[in-house]
This record gives sequence, structure tokens and C-alpha cells, in this order.
Amino acid sequence: MQKYRVGILGATGAVGQQFIRLLAAHPWFEVTALAASERSAGKPYHEAGRWILSTPIPESLAAMTVQTATPDLDCDFVFSGLDAAVAGDIEAAFAQAGYGVLSNARNYRLDPTVPLLIPEVNPGHTALIAQQQWEGGGFIVTNPNCSTVGLVMALKPLHDVFGVDTVQVTTLQALSGAGYPGVSSLDALGNVVPFIGGEEEKMRVEPLKLLGRLTGGEIEPAPITISAQCNRVPVLDGHLLCISARLCKNASVEEIEEVFRTAESPLAGMELPSAPARWLHVHDAPDAPQPRRHALLGDGMTVSIGRVRACEVLDVKFVALVHNTVRGAAGGAILNAELLARQGILKYRPVEA
Amino acid sequence: MQKYRVGILGATGAVGQQFIRLLAAHPWFEVTALAASERSAGKPYHEAGRWILSTPIPESLAAMTVQTATPDLDCDFVFSGLDAAVAGDIEAAFAQAGYGVLSNARNYRLDPTVPLLIPEVNPGHTALIAQQQWEGGGFIVTNPNCSTVGLVMALKPLHDVFGVDTVQVTTLQALSGAGYPGVSSLDALGNVVPFIGGEEEKMRVEPLKLLGRLTGGEIEPAPITISAQCNRVPVLDGHLLCISARLCKNASVEEIEEVFRTAESPLAGMELPSAPARWLHVHDAPDAPQPRRHALLGDGMTVSIGRVRACEVLDVKFVALVHNTVRGAAGGAILNAELLARQGILKYRPVEA
Amino acid sequence: MQKYRVGILGATGAVGQQFIRLLAAHPWFEVTALAASERSAGKPYHEAGRWILSTPIPESLAAMTVQTATPDLDCDFVFSGLDAAVAGDIEAAFAQAGYGVLSNARNYRLDPTVPLLIPEVNPGHTALIAQQQWEGGGFIVTNPNCSTVGLVMALKPLHDVFGVDTVQVTTLQALSGAGYPGVSSLDALGNVVPFIGGEEEKMRVEPLKLLGRLTGGEIEPAPITISAQCNRVPVLDGHLLCISARLCKNASVEEIEEVFRTAESPLAGMELPSAPARWLHVHDAPDAPQPRRHALLGDGMTVSIGRVRACEVLDVKFVALVHNTVRGAAGGAILNAELLARQGILKYRPVEA
Amino acid sequence: MQKYRVGILGATGAVGQQFIRLLAAHPWFEVTALAASERSAGKPYHEAGRWILSTPIPESLAAMTVQTATPDLDCDFVFSGLDAAVAGDIEAAFAQAGYGVLSNARNYRLDPTVPLLIPEVNPGHTALIAQQQWEGGGFIVTNPNCSTVGLVMALKPLHDVFGVDTVQVTTLQALSGAGYPGVSSLDALGNVVPFIGGEEEKMRVEPLKLLGRLTGGEIEPAPITISAQCNRVPVLDGHLLCISARLCKNASVEEIEEVFRTAESPLAGMELPSAPARWLHVHDAPDAPQPRRHALLGDGMTVSIGRVRACEVLDVKFVALVHNTVRGAAGGAILNAELLARQGILKYRPVEA
Repeated sequence: MQKYRVGILGATGAVGQQFIRLLAAHPWFEVTALAASERSAGKPYHEAGRWILSTPIPESLAAMTVQTATPDLDCDFVFSGLDAAVAGDIEAAFAQAGYGVLSNARNYRLDPTVPLLIPEVNPGHTALIAQQQWEGGGFIVTNPNCSTVGLVMALKPLHDVFGVDTVQVTTLQALSGAGYPGVSSLDALGNVVPFIGGEEEKMRVEPLKLLGRLTGGEIEPAPITISAQCNRVPVLDGHLLCISARLCKNASVEEIEEVFRTAESPLAGMELPSAPARWLHVHDAPDAPQPRRHALLGDGMTVSIGRVRACEVLDVKFVALVHNTVRGAAGGAILNAELLARQGILKYRPVEA
Repeated sequence: MQKYRVGILGATGAVGQQFIRLLAAHPWFEVTALAASERSAGKPYHEAGRWILSTPIPESLAAMTVQTATPDLDCDFVFSGLDAAVAGDIEAAFAQAGYGVLSNARNYRLDPTVPLLIPEVNPGHTALIAQQQWEGGGFIVTNPNCSTVGLVMALKPLHDVFGVDTVQVTTLQALSGAGYPGVSSLDALGNVVPFIGGEEEKMRVEPLKLLGRLTGGEIEPAPITISAQCNRVPVLDGHLLCISARLCKNASVEEIEEVFRTAESPLAGMELPSAPARWLHVHDAPDAPQPRRHALLGDGMTVSIGRVRACEVLDVKFVALVHNTVRGAAGGAILNAELLARQGILKYRPVEA
Repeated sequence: MQKYRVGILGATGAVGQQFIRLLAAHPWFEVTALAASERSAGKPYHEAGRWILSTPIPESLAAMTVQTATPDLDCDFVFSGLDAAVAGDIEAAFAQAGYGVLSNARNYRLDPTVPLLIPEVNPGHTALIAQQQWEGGGFIVTNPNCSTVGLVMALKPLHDVFGVDTVQVTTLQALSGAGYPGVSSLDALGNVVPFIGGEEEKMRVEPLKLLGRLTGGEIEPAPITISAQCNRVPVLDGHLLCISARLCKNASVEEIEEVFRTAESPLAGMELPSAPARWLHVHDAPDAPQPRRHALLGDGMTVSIGRVRACEVLDVKFVALVHNTVRGAAGGAILNAELLARQGILKYRPVEA
Repeated sequence: MQKYRVGILGATGAVGQQFIRLLAAHPWFEVTALAASERSAGKPYHEAGRWILSTPIPESLAAMTVQTATPDLDCDFVFSGLDAAVAGDIEAAFAQAGYGVLSNARNYRLDPTVPLLIPEVNPGHTALIAQQQWEGGGFIVTNPNCSTVGLVMALKPLHDVFGVDTVQVTTLQALSGAGYPGVSSLDALGNVVPFIGGEEEKMRVEPLKLLGRLTGGEIEPAPITISAQCNRVPVLDGHLLCISARLCKNASVEEIEEVFRTAESPLAGMELPSAPARWLHVHDAPDAPQPRRHALLGDGMTVSIGRVRACEVLDVKFVALVHNTVRGAAGGAILNAELLARQGILKYRPVEA
């Protein structure tokens, strides 16, 4: 299989860095273009921003010249880690110019023709792409908000088997979710900030599209009522979710836990390089999952479940953990691209002369 | 008014130290006896354990000899910061010997003749003391679990005005709640532990007694369904609670917030030294309250409320913050003693020759 | 004594907030003007910036309108918490207009006519003010860099008694030293940054002026060789210094420790409101001082000393701790103003009509 | 090459866990026995203690039964992560019974017949083993204290080229160095503890043996004067060292940095599995190395050097970083074993019937 040539929009940002780290040794994708703001353009990548990860910049990319985010990059498709403030126009320009855009930004997530995609949850939603009308034949596919990914992956098997009616979720979200420099250390250290702008609304709305049914070319939103309370805690990576749910059918805690333990991924057999061995992992320890100890399970692509027990108010309560910058951002977008490749949707563009 | 002579049981522990700090300049109470385990007994206090607070040991107590926790202390009543493992027997021995015992331990909280007391919430429950049958005429009064204090003080005005039917609460609890040495730094730093032994059950049960009605000499528990999820976060002091509630009557968010803002304390006019100017404080900032910035409001005796808004699942959701080692432990017990003094229940014991 | 009317330049910044907190109940000084950048000017103070302290904004100032930092403020003198980038011109303008300027900025610290002042160390250096030639009769007095304050206060008694020849110092500096938002939480949490721009040079140079001798109207720098290594650690407040020193005379560790314990402050008897009971405090515990436990000694104005022991390379090594935003910034400047008031240098300006 | 069968003494402790993690996929060594205290013996490993690492217990060992630490383990040699309190007797018993003991404990480090070994520093010191007189023919080899490893690896190339005369070092040490549960979170969070029992003495003495010369069957200690100040900081892994050194020959900062950059490892060509590609790495960034970002360089086996610059007091100052539980403990001991295997000193024991 010929490798796809990949561009990264927003390459110097926190999500862009994760794209670069995760693609360094990717068997299908090869980074051939890095794009960022005017300020960084023209510089070699290693001088264009502050590298914040604990693994070094891949040597093959350190000296690559950063370009501006205009749709003339030498690549087959792009990953976008752009800020929402600029992502709307730039991503549209790339789609218009014929590029596939795998976006982590929120701008197009609720567009009815744009798949909001988690491969294990709604792989069939990629059929929406056919409705997109970009002149040059490109497309946009988005991945959800980082907390939403953890919530929806945890709800998915319950929704399939019992139906989910109502959800209460309180999040304890990591600092890396706010990007770099993001949260001031004077706000973060030894503290909790019980507010993340826009987050509770995203968690209320995005799951309905993700768990919705595609009928007649449209997504019928899942009829689930969700209430979220979002907090920033002094953790580096890994969003923890305390979830309570009411189901549509009666189910014992044992049955529910068994569903978590045995839920099969629709990706089984597809051999996507970034798909973890287990998309969900149920912990036995009474005090698991914990962000620092378990966020990296499955190289950050596995969602952890723990403490499944009866809820006095709704039916069941449990804890879920998602690695916010891997599964919840760059890694999720990469898995999306892998699914599109397998589905034959991801195309090669002609190589520039 | 003659000062009461006070003994402290468990004087070297984390709660004991808070008793000592808070009583250092108390206008009614004077510490005359310090008691701890055999290991500490016989030593001057400043050598008996590790002082962990950021203010120094009060000079008047640093050299006081620590005694064993046997009921022959030279004092009028005792505050108990004992561990539950030993509190049951020792507190009973003191009550039996005629001492009043103001306990922070959980052992007698649910005893039907023992008041589980928050002065602003259920001051009349002290009437239960009359039913206690200790030979020497002593009594036991308890304060609730630290998270429960924050929850119940926040619910109290809602329960009075609208009735509370159902509560979902997720806690983000400080490290000091686990005592010293308590949580290992290797578990705490940059991490969340989504489990605190016994805590969720305490939060389910204790509020029903606290908000219950005293009729016919018994507490009729409040008919509230509570589901709690408890987490340990890397914060030093201050438990944050994300609360959702369903009320018995319809109420707008504005009406609810107004109730929080205007709720009067039943202690108004009693001039208890440790009662804060405001028992509840409603924050206007969208990202308040925060543990490190607001736990010390009212010298740690005020409970903070913030982010009052509609809940998609129950009726209303909001954030509450309580200083766990002050209002939630030593400070709460001291306020209890002050109420008992005002009510004429706290007696002087004969001074030993 | 008539209260001095005080203006604060840079009132919304981290140091400005400490000025406001510390002056809230000051017996000699009353804040009558708050000035900040254009962006804040015209707003009530409580809306002009983000208040980051754990005590609330003093009520008397919360509604005060913030002004621009131009020399027409209604006050007798100003405290400056301005950034060095703008402090040079603005402070000169105020001095030129006849105001006394008590500055925390570095711009004029090494000016030969400007006192670099720590009242306990070099109170006589205020005589330099007479050489300043501002048209309107104002003056500028500076306090040192925050780490330097701790180092010099610790060295002072040694220098007086034995003479200090050589110093090695490694600092572990708190996050608040970088202002707000300052250090990103992604750089700070669970990490050390072994670099603080310009800090090592300040620590090499400023002590020589502070410990220098005023002769013939000039400061003869103290002949001390200083090497500093500066680190940022995840601590909120309190700079810890690991110091080794070679003295000019032989001295035993016991003699040195005795000098620390008995060193008298030249402020004794002056009754300056912000002067702590002890300017130096020697700790007995083998693991003291610690930033979180001891930085607030003497309300943040006492410098802690601990672990005095022989050095295998130089003569003696020990640990010192200074509260960087109190003694090392706002509190130090306020104490400077108090000294100037006692010395009769601080004047009242005519009240505007 | 036949795999060596390996036992781990102290398998449930913090160092023991690192041995298990690092040996999970080792090409030469296979863990065949796990030993710990009576309390753990008889249990399957995954139930015997609290696993604190962020990677899971290797599946092949999770169910292995823990044994007592008596010298009848089925293995060729043992790694010891025992506490010093028990290591002396147990390690002697194993050596006496014919086992090679690769120890991380301090008990035998200064024994004149026991190599204190860092393979890149003093590989020839293994010749001391010949002098050990254990009845059964076993031996003991030790690795140094975790901070010492970083100091000595950084000094080694300077000592080889210029000679090192004098060293001042201040450490900022990670929490994992104290084991588990180790430091209380109430001591660690947002704090520095400027004291680590015994550490400064170890750093004064151990380097002299490590950098000493083996002549006439004895180690002649290197004539270096070392003064250390040791601090515990809220970092998980990675000890940072601020070092100043006086050299025996004149050298410019450029020459010194060049020596760091070009120093060859004596292990070059030996292909030891745990030897990193670069044993020293010199960072260019002005604020590197940082514990969280760089401790894992070379899988935790590379020592980082940064900020090489002139020292005003001695000749040169710089920062070094060592991963304390990998290079400074388990990883160091494993590399020692690899060296012994290459040198033909590590023997196979007969397999039990």
C-alpha cells in the first residue's frame, strides 16, 4: 500500500504536536507538510514553537520548513489541529481545493453533512460525506470534543444493548485540554476550576449526533437527556468522567458490567494501525481508573471503565477515563483517517511536479 | 463568662492540630489538656508529633505534656479528633465519666440519641441529648463527615423553601481529608483517585438525619434520595461538590439563587464566636468557587455556592465548596460546642484539687 | 499622624494586588489612587483584572475607578508594581512631577543615586536620595529582586560579624515570582525549569550594592563573589535558597548559628508597622524551612534560616526562605516607605482642590 | 545465548516494580522468581502489593507466586530492591549460597571488595569481585545512590580530561526516590522539603570510590571535595542537579561543553541491551533539561546536561538530570548485570530438578 502524504494544520500547537508524535512511525501516513500561522511560517519546525511533549521532535520533521495554512500543501489530505477561531475558513478552503480534512476543531461538528466520527461508535456516518458539495471534491470529517469521546465510547455498548435514556456526568479534566500555554500555573496548582467555557453544552449535544441513527441521508439524534458539570483539575493528561445513567430497559449491575467487558468493536478484523487491542477496558481495582496511571492504556486509545455500581437516583453509575489529547484529539482523528482509508474514501492526490 | 476548660483527644492528628489552632485565641474555651496515643503520652506537645499547619504551634501549648486519652483529664469537656478505630470506646468512657464529648469521629453519628449537628441546619436536635443515659451524666454530640457538611449546608435553604427530593453529587475532595500522612504523594501528584472508602455511603445517609425532623423524641429522616461519587484530587484544603437536585416544588433558577443569597442563619443574634458573618456565600464569577481561593472564606466557616443553573436532568445544578478541616471538622465541632454553651447544655465540671 | 495618601502603579498585576492586600488596613498609608494600563483605565477595580489572591479585594477599593499611570494622581507618593518594560519612563515621570516612587521594578536599582533598599540591611542608603535631581522634587527608591532579598537578609549578619567573601547559591523559586498568568501549568506541574531569565545576574550584582558602604556620597560595592543557579519549582509562594558561603574570618558553625539567632535589626525601636517581630528566624527542625509551611512567618516579612552546617567546599552552608511577593516585593516596598516616613524623607503633597 | 534466570528481591516495592517493568522484554534475562516480605509471600504478584507504575504488570508475571527472600530461589542471580534495613543479611545469605547479587541497597556500597558500579564510569572495578570470599561462590555488586549516579556520570568526562578538584551540588529530587508510600502528599504538594536523610553524605563519599583508581586490588579514592545540599521537590521522576566544579586544569566553557558532547562511552561496541545510544546528552535549549520532559531520554538511561556556563566561584556550572528509578536504580543494576555477563562474570546456576 502506497503511503498517504499528510499535512498538518496548526502543527505548532498542542494538538499539532500530538499529530506529529503519533504519525512519526505510522505505517500508512507520512507527514509531508507542516502548516501554522504567519508567525511560524518560514521557520524550521523545531524553531517555530515550543515543543511541550516528553518525547523529542521526530528527527525527520525537526528541520522541515513550516508553511502557511493555505490550500497548496504537497499532501493527499490534512489533519487540522487549528483553533476554532480560524479553523472554519481554512478548513473550508482546503475542502474546496480538493483535500480531505480530518479536523479536531468544533466548527463543523454539528454540520448535517459532516460526520462527527468515532470509528468504534458510528463508522457508518461516513456516508454523509457523499452529501458534501465542495467544488474541488474535498471533504471534512470531525472528531468530537475530548470529554465527549470518553462519554460516548462508554455509553455506546449500553446504548446498543439497553438504550440510554438519561445521563448525568461530572468531568475532572486535564490541563492539556486547554492547550499551551493554556491554564496559568497560578490557577492550576493545588486547585480546581469548576468551569470550562462551552464544554457542558458540547457534552449535551455532540453525543446525540454520535449515537444518532443515519436514516434517509440524515442523522436522527439519539433521544438522550444529558446534564454535564465540567471541572479543570491539576492533572496533565486524561479526562475522568463520573457518569450516572438511566437505561431504557431494566438491567442489573452485573449485566451492565458484562456488557462493558464483552462489547465488540466494529473495527475488529479491519486491522487499523491505531485501533487499540481493546477499545474499552474494565478495571477490577476499586480505585481505578486513575488519569496518571491509566490514561495511556492502549497507547492512549483505550477508554477505561471502573467502579460500575448501582446509582440511587438513575440506574447505574461508573467512572470513565479518556486520554484527552490522544483518543480525544489527535489519535482520534488519525483513527478516523484510517477508517476512511479502509472504506476507500481517502484518496491520493496527484503529486506536484 | 468563665472560660470552659477544654481537652483535646487525638491532639497530635490532623484534626487535633486544627482544634489547637482554632482554639488558640478562643474567647470562651481554653485548652487545658491534650491527649493522644500511648506513643505520644508523656512528651511535650511540640515533640509528640509532626505539626503540619502553616501557622506555628500556639506558644502556650507547645510545652504542654501530652496525656493518654483516659477520662481523668482536667477539663470541662473534650473535643475528639480520634480515629474511628478507637473513638468508640474512648468517647464512651469520657461520656460515662461525665464529660461532654464533641466528636468528629463517625462512630456515634447515626446513634438515635446522639445529635449529628450543624448549628445552622438543625440546632434543635441537641434535644436528643436528654435521652442519653451515661452514668456520669456526660454526653456525645457529633459533627458530620466533611463532605456531608458542605452538601447539607447547601441543601438546607432549598429544603426549607422548596423541599429537596433527589440529589446527585460528585465530589472533588482535598488531600487533608485523609489525615496525615494520609495519601501518598505518588498517588496524589497530577492524579485523581476516584474512590474514598465509605464516603459515598456517608453522603447518602447522614444528610437524611441532619435534615430530618425531631418528633416524639426521634429524628424522622428527610425523604431524600442521594447518589454520590467521590474523588480525591490534588488540592490541599477544600472539598468541591458538583450538585444536581430535584425539588419538591417548581422553582426558577432565579428563585433558587435568591434563596441561596438570602437564607438566614438560625444563629443570627446568638453571637457565637465561630459563626461566620455569612454561613453561605454566593459567588458571581463564572469560575467560582475554587478551593485554593475560596475555602478560607469566613475563616473557613462559610460554605461557597456558585454556578447556579438549570439542570437538564433534575431541576437545578450548582457548585458548593466547604473547607474540610475547618467547617468540615474541627471548626464545625467548635461551633457545635458554642451552640451547646448558648443553649445551657455545656456544663462546668468541678476543678480538680 | 496624618495618613499618607498612596497611589499604586500597576494595580491590577500580581505585585499590585499584594500592595492592595497589604495596605488594606495600614495605619499610616491609605490607598487613594489606582493606576494601570490603558486597557484597565476607567473600569472599577474589581472588573479591571483577575484577582488572584485567596483573600477578597478590600471592599473600600473594589469599586474605585482605575486611572492611567500618568503623574496626576491624587496621592502623596506611589508604589510601583509596573513591569520593567514600562516602569522606566513612568516612574521617571512621577519623580519629575514631585512624587516619591517606591518601586519594585528593576529599572533604577543600579542607578548610583537611587537607594536599593532593605531597611534592616542598609537603612542609611536613603541618603542617596539627596543626590537625585528631579525637577519637581520627587524621588525613586527601589527594593531588590525577590530572591536577592532573601539572600542578602541572610548574609547581612554574617557580613557584619565575619565578612562574607564568596557565595554559592541555588534557588528554588515559586511560581508567583513570574506574575500572572506567568508560568504555564503545562510547564510547571510536576516539573522544574532550571532557568529564570536575568535572575542569576541580578543575584550576582544587587547584593554588592545592598551590602556596600556609603562613602563620599557613593556606594562602594561589597567585595563579594557570588555565583547563582536559579530554578522554577511548582510552589506557589516562597523562594528557597541553598546557600554556601566563605567568610573573611574563621568561625565555627555554632558561632555562625548564634549570629543568625541573635542578629539585631537596626529597625528595633522604630515601630515600623510592617517590620516583623523577628527579621530572621532560625528553625530547629532538620527539614525546615519549607515554602508552604514557613513563607508566611511574620506575615511574610520574616526570612527563615535552617540547616546551618559546615560546608566541605566553602565554610558554611544553610537554607534560607523568603516570601517572594511579600518581603520580596510589595511588603518590602511598604517597609521601605515606612522607613522613609520615619526618617522624615516621605512628604505630604498638597491635596488637590 | 541462553537466557539467565533472574530473581527479584523486594519485588513489590517501588524499585522492585521498575525491575519487573524493565525486564519484561529483556533479551538476556528472564524473571523466574519474585521474592518479598512474609506479608506478601504466597500471594500471586498482582495481589501482593500496590502496583504504582503507569504501564500494567507484565502479564507473564501477574500470576507468579511471591516467595520469601530466602536463598533457595530458582534463578541464576538476583536483583535486590530491598530496603537497607533488611538488605544486609539477605543479600549476604544469597551471596553465601552462590548467587550473584545485583543490589540497589546502600549496605555494601562502601565495602572494599564490592564494586560500586556504573558501567560507563568504572567498568574495571568489577575486578574487585575476585576478592569476595562467599562460601558458595556468589558475589555482590552494587549501584550507587540515585543522585550520585547523575553527578558521577556528569563528572566522569570532566575528570578524565581535566581532573575534577572540587564540587558544589544542590539537588532537586523527585518523590519516587523515597519509595512508596514514601512522602506524604501533605508534605509534597506545592512545597519543597530541604532535607533528605543521609543523602548529602552519600553524595560526598560514593563519587570518590566510583571515580577512584583500582590499583593493587584496592580502590584509591579520587581526591575530590564535594559539598551537597539535597531537596525534595514535587516532581514524580527525575533528579535535577545544579553543579559547580573546579577543575585541575584550565579549560574554557567551550572546551568543557565539547568534552560533554563528545565523551565516548567505554561500552561502545559491547551492545549491552540497556545501554542507551548516548550516555550523556547535552541540551541546546536555555531552559533544559527539565525532569518531566527529559528524564526519559534514552528510555531513562541517558543523563542530560544543560546550561554549561562559567561559574563565578569555581570554574564551571551546569545542570544535570538523571532518571532516579531507572538509571539511578533498577535500570542501573540491570546494566551492571549486562556488563558482568559480557565480562564472563555472571554464571548460570544449575536448574533445580
